[in-house]
Amino acid sequence: MKRNKKERQLLLKDTIEEKPFITDEALAKMFEVSIQTIRLDRMELNIPELRERIKSVATNNWNETVKALPIDEVIGEIIDLELDNRAISILDITAEHVFSRNKIARGHHLFAQANSLAVAVINDELALTANADIKFTRQVVQGERVIAKARVIEVTSSNRTAVEIQSYVDNETVFTGLFEMFRSNDNKEGEQS
Amino acid sequence: MKRNKKERQLLLKDTIEEKPFITDEALAKMFEVSIQTIRLDRMELNIPELRERIKSVATNNWNETVKALPIDEVIGEIIDLELDNRAISILDITAEHVFSRNKIARGHHLFAQANSLAVAVINDELALTANADIKFTRQVVQGERVIAKARVIEVTSSNRTAVEIQSYVDNETVFTGLFEMFRSNDNKEGEQS
Repeated sequence: MKRNKKERQLLLKDTIEEKPFITDEALAKMFEVSIQTIRLDRMELNIPELRERIKSVATNNWNETVKALPIDEVIGEIIDLELDNRAISILDITAEHVFSRNKIARGHHLFAQANSLAVAVINDELALTANADIKFTRQVVQGERVIAKARVIEVTSSNRTAVEIQSYVDNETVFTGLFEMFRSNDNKEGEQS
Repeated sequence: MKRNKKERQLLLKDTIEEKPFITDEALAKMFEVSIQTIRLDRMELNIPELRERIKSVATNNWNETVKALPIDEVIGEIIDLELDNRAISILDITAEHVFSRNKIARGHHLFAQANSLAVAVINDELALTANADIKFTRQVVQGERVIAKARVIEVTSSNRTAVEIQSYVDNETVFTGLFEMFRSNDNKEGEQS
């Protein structure tokens, strides 16, 4: 059922507040209008585009720098980071990331985004992956934007840290992983047993 | 203890027969001689270099072609393949595969080799990774050669197949993974329940 413009814009505002990572494409589908209409609505409502929304939400609290690797070695773009706590990155799926035959994103690219985010969130000069338990829960195709969120859930020993990664496209989970990370723990002498 | 040349060459021959994937570097270390000495020994004994050894062993039985993806989309070089049974690939770790800081191979490249081999071994036009349980058991550094072996261990349902991957450097395990692969099963109608 199509809504009138006023109804749609009210609902649009609520929807974006609730799901800040939703794309214009998904909104257009949801409201059964064109993407162009969604863009015009956003302009009238002064709602910035997705990438800006994510950045503005995230960078409010982002005053830390990646320690375990140079930032340009992170796969995807880090837009939020609190070391040893949480991190977010975005990766736009382009032709280089997909199987040529069906345009489905190849698993190792989703893995690379998640794994390098798990490395980046560690507050240590050295962080290596010990093991991981991963699931690909929904196919991702060329043109989609994957948002990976890392959460440090447990320091299992003085030099092991468990990091949970959830990756989304339009708020739908596409990948989950539990990574156990090895760290040197050089700068945490007080915690060593 | 250093052996004389004759003893060494006898042992060398036995060792290579037993571990065909061993590198000259590892042999040099084992026999406490230079790599150059190992190369000369191999020449005198008419034992080809590692890559040739692997290929000659493998391609004897390799008369199949990859179905699930174009062969140039496989990460690493496939040197053995029997669809729905086993496959082997080799990946030389170069500067592009390592962390700039410590020259340790990045996890997602070892994962990419393993994952694409798990796709390649499937006898189906469509193969996608559903989930994986992986372990990085030893650091791999720039200059090392990783040999990944895939073994199809179970067809868990009409459209799921479990593939075990073990990756080695010099016969030492560096990565293991159990991949559950989704397949379309289009060409196996008789087996559907």
